[in-house]
Amino acid sequence: MKNFLSERKYLLSNASAKKIYKEIKSLPIVDPHNHANVAEIADNKNFSDPWQLFAATDHYVWEVLRKRNVPEKYISGGAMPKEKWLKMASVFPEIAGNPVYEWIHLDLRRYLGIDDIISPENGLKIWDKASAALQKKGARPQALLKKIAVETMCSTDDPVDTLKHHARMNEQAQKIFIHPTWRPDKIMNIRSKNWKDYLYSLEKKFNAEIDNLDKLMEVLKQSHDYFAAHGCVASDHGVQAPPTGIGNKDTAEKIFKMAKTGVIPSIDEAKVYINWIFGEMAGLDASKNWVFQIHIGAVRDVRDSIFNNIGPDAGGDVSDHFIDILSPLRSFLNRFDDKLKIVLYCLEPGHQATLATIARTFGSKVRLGAAWWLCDTPIGMKRQLEYIGSVDLFANFAGMVSDSRKLLSYGSRFEVFRRVLSDVLGEMVGKGQMPLCAAIELAEKMSYSEPKKFYNL
Amino acid sequence: MKNFLSERKYLLSNASAKKIYKEIKSLPIVDPHNHANVAEIADNKNFSDPWQLFAATDHYVWEVLRKRNVPEKYISGGAMPKEKWLKMASVFPEIAGNPVYEWIHLDLRRYLGIDDIISPENGLKIWDKASAALQKKGARPQALLKKIAVETMCSTDDPVDTLKHHARMNEQAQKIFIHPTWRPDKIMNIRSKNWKDYLYSLEKKFNAEIDNLDKLMEVLKQSHDYFAAHGCVASDHGVQAPPTGIGNKDTAEKIFKMAKTGVIPSIDEAKVYINWIFGEMAGLDASKNWVFQIHIGAVRDVRDSIFNNIGPDAGGDVSDHFIDILSPLRSFLNRFDDKLKIVLYCLEPGHQATLATIARTFGSKVRLGAAWWLCDTPIGMKRQLEYIGSVDLFANFAGMVSDSRKLLSYGSRFEVFRRVLSDVLGEMVGKGQMPLCAAIELAEKMSYSEPKKFYNL
Amino acid sequence: MKNFLSERKYLLSNASAKKIYKEIKSLPIVDPHNHANVAEIADNKNFSDPWQLFAATDHYVWEVLRKRNVPEKYISGGAMPKEKWLKMASVFPEIAGNPVYEWIHLDLRRYLGIDDIISPENGLKIWDKASAALQKKGARPQALLKKIAVETMCSTDDPVDTLKHHARMNEQAQKIFIHPTWRPDKIMNIRSKNWKDYLYSLEKKFNAEIDNLDKLMEVLKQSHDYFAAHGCVASDHGVQAPPTGIGNKDTAEKIFKMAKTGVIPSIDEAKVYINWIFGEMAGLDASKNWVFQIHIGAVRDVRDSIFNNIGPDAGGDVSDHFIDILSPLRSFLNRFDDKLKIVLYCLEPGHQATLATIARTFGSKVRLGAAWWLCDTPIGMKRQLEYIGSVDLFANFAGMVSDSRKLLSYGSRFEVFRRVLSDVLGEMVGKGQMPLCAAIELAEKMSYSEPKKFYNL
Repeated sequence: MKNFLSERKYLLSNASAKKIYKEIKSLPIVDPHNHANVAEIADNKNFSDPWQLFAATDHYVWEVLRKRNVPEKYISGGAMPKEKWLKMASVFPEIAGNPVYEWIHLDLRRYLGIDDIISPENGLKIWDKASAALQKKGARPQALLKKIAVETMCSTDDPVDTLKHHARMNEQAQKIFIHPTWRPDKIMNIRSKNWKDYLYSLEKKFNAEIDNLDKLMEVLKQSHDYFAAHGCVASDHGVQAPPTGIGNKDTAEKIFKMAKTGVIPSIDEAKVYINWIFGEMAGLDASKNWVFQIHIGAVRDVRDSIFNNIGPDAGGDVSDHFIDILSPLRSFLNRFDDKLKIVLYCLEPGHQATLATIARTFGSKVRLGAAWWLCDTPIGMKRQLEYIGSVDLFANFAGMVSDSRKLLSYGSRFEVFRRVLSDVLGEMVGKGQMPLCAAIELAEKMSYSEPKKFYNL
Repeated sequence: MKNFLSERKYLLSNASAKKIYKEIKSLPIVDPHNHANVAEIADNKNFSDPWQLFAATDHYVWEVLRKRNVPEKYISGGAMPKEKWLKMASVFPEIAGNPVYEWIHLDLRRYLGIDDIISPENGLKIWDKASAALQKKGARPQALLKKIAVETMCSTDDPVDTLKHHARMNEQAQKIFIHPTWRPDKIMNIRSKNWKDYLYSLEKKFNAEIDNLDKLMEVLKQSHDYFAAHGCVASDHGVQAPPTGIGNKDTAEKIFKMAKTGVIPSIDEAKVYINWIFGEMAGLDASKNWVFQIHIGAVRDVRDSIFNNIGPDAGGDVSDHFIDILSPLRSFLNRFDDKLKIVLYCLEPGHQATLATIARTFGSKVRLGAAWWLCDTPIGMKRQLEYIGSVDLFANFAGMVSDSRKLLSYGSRFEVFRRVLSDVLGEMVGKGQMPLCAAIELAEKMSYSEPKKFYNL
Repeated sequence: MKNFLSERKYLLSNASAKKIYKEIKSLPIVDPHNHANVAEIADNKNFSDPWQLFAATDHYVWEVLRKRNVPEKYISGGAMPKEKWLKMASVFPEIAGNPVYEWIHLDLRRYLGIDDIISPENGLKIWDKASAALQKKGARPQALLKKIAVETMCSTDDPVDTLKHHARMNEQAQKIFIHPTWRPDKIMNIRSKNWKDYLYSLEKKFNAEIDNLDKLMEVLKQSHDYFAAHGCVASDHGVQAPPTGIGNKDTAEKIFKMAKTGVIPSIDEAKVYINWIFGEMAGLDASKNWVFQIHIGAVRDVRDSIFNNIGPDAGGDVSDHFIDILSPLRSFLNRFDDKLKIVLYCLEPGHQATLATIARTFGSKVRLGAAWWLCDTPIGMKRQLEYIGSVDLFANFAGMVSDSRKLLSYGSRFEVFRRVLSDVLGEMVGKGQMPLCAAIELAEKMSYSEPKKFYNL
């Protein structure tokens, strides 16, 4: 047991790795992309119970419980938090190998001081210990974030969202602690049955009638400006394949107007509109020197039973090797060459070489994002870093992001990343590929200073 | 030399790996998919010679000999077994690195007690030793299977096959030792020039005129029932891309009738029929709680000179990254969500992430199969296990299968798998990612109890 | 520092790896594919300065400098060589991890005896030391090649090129030291706006009016014969997807004639011509028992700003997973099955399994080339060798090539390859997968004797 998540050894294979990690482990955390519950952090109340803190909002946990036959009632359903926790404990040893096993154990140890190993036998004991720990003042959101050493972070927000919780939080912090991120996916998804309603919510929010594309962009710019005023430094875009950023405006306008009447455009029609508006939004970012983040390759809501009964972001998403990434990205990157800071996030290992060679080619403003979602595992990060460090440059890495679905993730995910990074660089030092001093310099840059500079945080 | 295939060290990199392997090495073998020669096992006669046992039926061996310029006469051709063996020995050191090198050496050591290293110089000596060993009673098929500790296995059979050898064998064993597997590929392959003849053989076997799809399914169900009565627990399906399981029956019927007149349907027409019948066959399995196995991604009979002169399954097959797996599988898995046990076998490393994320999403009944064929190598298995254990769950692995083309493979392939599995888990223990006890529990589950339970063996 | 590029340890993880490397490190270098500047070697003058030797002709260096924001003026632009060198030094620690970092340090150490680590602080000191070293007679091209132990090499040449520098060099060497390679890409690229001019240069060179395909092939055969007379043993072909080698000649003829009038053919029209001529050129090679090399998967000139301002081969190229390799290659390989020696070079990791399983299937004449370009890194080579050694055969590897853009690459790239190869084999020996003697035999074959034999060098 004694090796398990050992502070000194976890994920670190050789002496150089340990030396590198020692230099970066205490650096503050800068987290440019997550799904922070800003209201929860601003409210700063104690968490109701361990299930709420560890699993209630985290579909990564939900999926592994389903794989071990836990009924939905004990996952997203109506069972009591304690019942859910005990069910989780009853299968926990069976999920070893999946990072959920490491993350939850890490969170218990590092932030609540509980170093038991979860099992059917001691599920209740840990529930009790964790419940007690959560009562303390030191377990409130802001205290936990301080313990985690979060310096600054970027939440993910919709253009119609109010940013009052951000304002409230940042006033408490007396600095911009949580930056909003402008994520306009909903106005792009013109084939969604909710698109028309979303457009209406934009009209309502900005008190405008949006009956043409100029008006749409005017309203979006208003939102963009409002985000900027609240410290926003980046936008984010979730796409299966990247749009080209180039589309005929007149055609896009016709399709927009048609969709506003309730007619769902064809896939090809939708593309014209999406390609056009993607370019316009990139233009907004370029004008403010924001970072334009593209999350590429998630095929969402693939399992009907999950989507129909529970909804999106509940565990029905996959990656797909069979997507043309290069053609559209080539158009987009050439249009904005040297004019826009861009981060490319890769979900599918099969797209990684395409994206990495693109990043190599398009100069210092185009950067590769952290191993994302299904690749955000020790092995996924290791394989990514080994490859992109040799094809692109380590120093140009856009930085780790927690992509957090719950508060503690800011800690465990960054810890795992920094350890894997130290290990990858430590192995290169061990093999004589770079001197230790160069590795330490890179590790520091990648963990803190480069992303901070690139995102302007 | 002393390290080569060492009982204690082979494929095991650290102390934890060795401890894990010690716990699982003697577990009985449950082999849910192979190409057993059931008659040979039931007959239980001594093998005629070493070539027969080691190479005569194994296209994995054939291919590596071709790569080293061995003439076909000494591979699948008319040369004497001893001549073939000596030719093989003459190039054997040149195939080191390919698993055929390890498998044949393992088989010689573990089951015939010969630990020489094959070379041009000692080919004859080993032939003599092996020939002598094969004369013994302990080298008959059933004795070898006992030495290998095979508890139960599943052969691969056609719906028109008689299962009398299975019955004969299982009577000797006084239990169902060899389960048949229902593999109806031939009735799916409606564009094959042999399809019409195959349909006729179904008609003959079941004494029925099959002139519409209802009749076809009635006959297939008769075969399905007959297999069930002989202990069948699974079907198996070899496909380049998976069919959707959903097709218009009326159109499928027209295409079926047309094909029965001898007209080969177009690719698009064939798809309607294939998609439809694939769904019907899955329905049969669902009704009996069988496991529906899909072998995905083999492009067969690619080299004309092999196919025309020697035939299928002789070494003319490749994998192809450029196949759309997700779209059709998404239809199929949603249709049978939670109603059918499914195993997805992946041939092409480039499809692995797509398949693994699908398995993650579709719950406990959809499982990933063992690294298949061209990936059934120490490195192929290692890469697969490392990845799928982090994206899906180790505990949900469908289990090792020998996919055997010869009797000894039941032993060497499972040994290699168990060692690689111990190594992957041992490395995770070494890196502090899980405690040793959790790793041992997983290894036991993956090597024996989970597949046994899942397949109902 | 002391481990960095250590002669004894660099890239060698265990004792077996070190033993294997010791056996192969001094073998002569046979380099079947590079971009040698033959005139420079034949002239044998001292290099003007370190920038000229290390970076002026090498777009691998250019790309990493761009990633670290070095202005183009100091890369391909008008700054003085010394200014460029100092700019490079100013960012050099930031490129650690990329092989450029290792190559340049290796070149300084192994061939100029300078073992400083490049940094902003000591850039000038190294410039001075290197400048002094380059004045010596021992730093002239031919002396350096001798130090590197180059036995023979193959440059890359166009069918219209004169081979007088080759003749001049080989006369000095009193043997064929530099073989030309016939690379007819330009006559294939019928959609290029330069194609018509190129055709005209062929007409001029061979004093012929090329107004039909028979005439074109007659002229190309003249060039092919001329290359043969100068020691050529191979052709080379750079393609995004491989052509089929089969096309309707009449249609191809129409398209050829149309293109000669200045009309650019459509993509589909171009394919007919390209498929046809690719087959004809393969026929020429088959008739002379040359090796037909295919470099597959580079998407070139993707970044417009580089291509428009600097040109091709300047750092605007990427790899793309989304290319159908198998369908056309299947046609081509079946047409020339057992009649033509073929080497398949893979750029995109996602194509590797497809290409490796094809090589496995098509017998001893179809071989996999070295990890290419963006994969020609320690990790890229390692992953390639681990995989292809298990699916295909190590012994059938086509051999390392420098693909050199500058003279010193013949040394550093082969050193890195031999070390990685020793490491991969050493790890297999360490894990008990092959005896040390077999590994040494393979390493020797792969590093020297097999490529020499296969290429007939």
